[in-house]
Amino acid sequence: MSVPGGPRPTLEAVAALAGVSRATVSRVVNGGTGVRAEIREKVQEAVAELGYVPNIAARSLVTRRTGAVAVVIAEPETRVFSDPFFAQQLRGIGRELGAADTQLLLMMVESDRDHARIGRYLSGGHVDGALMFSLHRADPLPAMAADSGLPTVFGGRPHWSDDGPAGARPLYVDTDNRDGARQAVRHLLGRGRRRIAVITGPLDQTSAQDRLDGYREALTGPDAPPVDERLIADGSFTAEGGERAMAALLDSVPDLDAVFACSDLMATGALRTLRARGLRVPEDVAVVGYDDLAPAAWADPPLTTVRQDVQEMGRLMARLLLDRLATDDGARLAPVVTPATLIVRDSA
Amino acid sequence: MSVPGGPRPTLEAVAALAGVSRATVSRVVNGGTGVRAEIREKVQEAVAELGYVPNIAARSLVTRRTGAVAVVIAEPETRVFSDPFFAQQLRGIGRELGAADTQLLLMMVESDRDHARIGRYLSGGHVDGALMFSLHRADPLPAMAADSGLPTVFGGRPHWSDDGPAGARPLYVDTDNRDGARQAVRHLLGRGRRRIAVITGPLDQTSAQDRLDGYREALTGPDAPPVDERLIADGSFTAEGGERAMAALLDSVPDLDAVFACSDLMATGALRTLRARGLRVPEDVAVVGYDDLAPAAWADPPLTTVRQDVQEMGRLMARLLLDRLATDDGARLAPVVTPATLIVRDSA
Repeated sequence: MSVPGGPRPTLEAVAALAGVSRATVSRVVNGGTGVRAEIREKVQEAVAELGYVPNIAARSLVTRRTGAVAVVIAEPETRVFSDPFFAQQLRGIGRELGAADTQLLLMMVESDRDHARIGRYLSGGHVDGALMFSLHRADPLPAMAADSGLPTVFGGRPHWSDDGPAGARPLYVDTDNRDGARQAVRHLLGRGRRRIAVITGPLDQTSAQDRLDGYREALTGPDAPPVDERLIADGSFTAEGGERAMAALLDSVPDLDAVFACSDLMATGALRTLRARGLRVPEDVAVVGYDDLAPAAWADPPLTTVRQDVQEMGRLMARLLLDRLATDDGARLAPVVTPATLIVRDSA
Repeated sequence: MSVPGGPRPTLEAVAALAGVSRATVSRVVNGGTGVRAEIREKVQEAVAELGYVPNIAARSLVTRRTGAVAVVIAEPETRVFSDPFFAQQLRGIGRELGAADTQLLLMMVESDRDHARIGRYLSGGHVDGALMFSLHRADPLPAMAADSGLPTVFGGRPHWSDDGPAGARPLYVDTDNRDGARQAVRHLLGRGRRRIAVITGPLDQTSAQDRLDGYREALTGPDAPPVDERLIADGSFTAEGGERAMAALLDSVPDLDAVFACSDLMATGALRTLRARGLRVPEDVAVVGYDDLAPAAWADPPLTTVRQDVQEMGRLMARLLLDRLATDDGARLAPVVTPATLIVRDSA
């Protein structure tokens, strides 16, 4: 173990402990290829045991790396700091980058005016790669990153992910949104609900569109009621949006008996509206959320929801980018899609 | 081995250790060609051993700006995302920087291991300046920034602010913490409270020390009771810390009749402990907080507190840094101290 304030463990010490050459340690630490998995593992164990920290100055001389990665969230600071989704995802990202001694730079987008400035920074050689989230269809940032050749991993499947040749397709980490939504709606159908509303996120985000598609799919079976378009409302992925959408849904379909809110925050907003209208949950209206972040368990009643492991998704994004930086072109890397799991609590 | 905050290893030192000329080191470091692999490796080893970082900051200031400013918060991501103080301050900073078309890069400090990495990034020419907050006495980052010549503005008065010649003194934005604390304690004295406890922040931060000093000053008048050291407890500026500190205070002085918590978050923790012990606020124990962020007004009962305009302080920090970047040396710029105002609600 390394002792705080004690001498820094050296590359030589790692090599000695792992029983390999300095060059091999250097190759593993700098993410180079051509080291067998078994040897790589031995070196990584020695690195962990000794608490070895690669010297970035030396590394950047070899690799011309800055040792920093930009995390670009295409949302304003007020949204980033009020939605626990981002804090969780940043936790996973930060830990994985920290373990690789790589600095996280968080950049938020306050308005469309910021795009050009962020694009300039990303293409200015100040970062080795970027993680981008919460992209809307018209965001110019991905194209800017692509033009500059900056390795980029996306949080959520970009809408152009199926365009172009395979080698040029974007790397991303996503959860199976369509399946998660199907599970939510099938659970409601299984409880005998027939007029199931859905509160969607902004449909220019694939996660929002995929969840709506899953809702529709669950309602296409022979036993399911047909989709009533009046039961679909946009809640913008915010609590206030969920509150407003629930009110609009109740105004147009007063006898609806369930609602699938495509995020926990929107579900908490929907609960507020239902309470204000004197409707009981789940007796009058059953509610299912999405995410399984802290607000779900704290809600009154506690929310039945679809769990996505947000922190792990952040970690996987960082890992995928680090892997991408360790290879020449990322052609052998592939997007990662994590499963969604229904968590049954009291609201449905 | 380079020591954080110690003198930066020079190009000369690298040349001496590698046994080559300065020009050769420069050529290797700047990626030039015409250096034999064997010599290049020697130089790279010397660079690694000394922790040498090429200083391109100075060069980049002469030739071009990056258009970006680092905001370094010396707290882990969990703290940054759970304490509304940081969100408010970032809002003010972000708006002022955005209006000047300058990009905000947020960097958080998860552990002491991060200091060296952040220091390297800051001195690597990737940002035009830095805003630093929540510094503790032993933080090496300010020295790293100073060594690299990076223009820096501090959130809160740095503890070394009176050291050195006037021109070299740090620029900062602070609130009048001492006066705010005096107002809080005088308000409690004016309501007839005599055994007034204080829950402090970490005393290696000047804001925490200044508020404790203000508490002591308010209790030195002829009409005030003498300071009882058992009435002072550390709450670490967190809600959990406030909860624990309140319990410790009640254990040692069960008949205390008021508490001044040096942050609203700590005050909400203190309220939880008081409620758990069956004590009424303000009848049995009056409570005053500090900050006037959202938790103050939401608290039960709503908190009497000392208001500092956190968002405006963030804006002023950004403004001061932008002014600094627009001048040669900042010699005519001065720190800014904003007033503190008592806000009376129900808790005292």
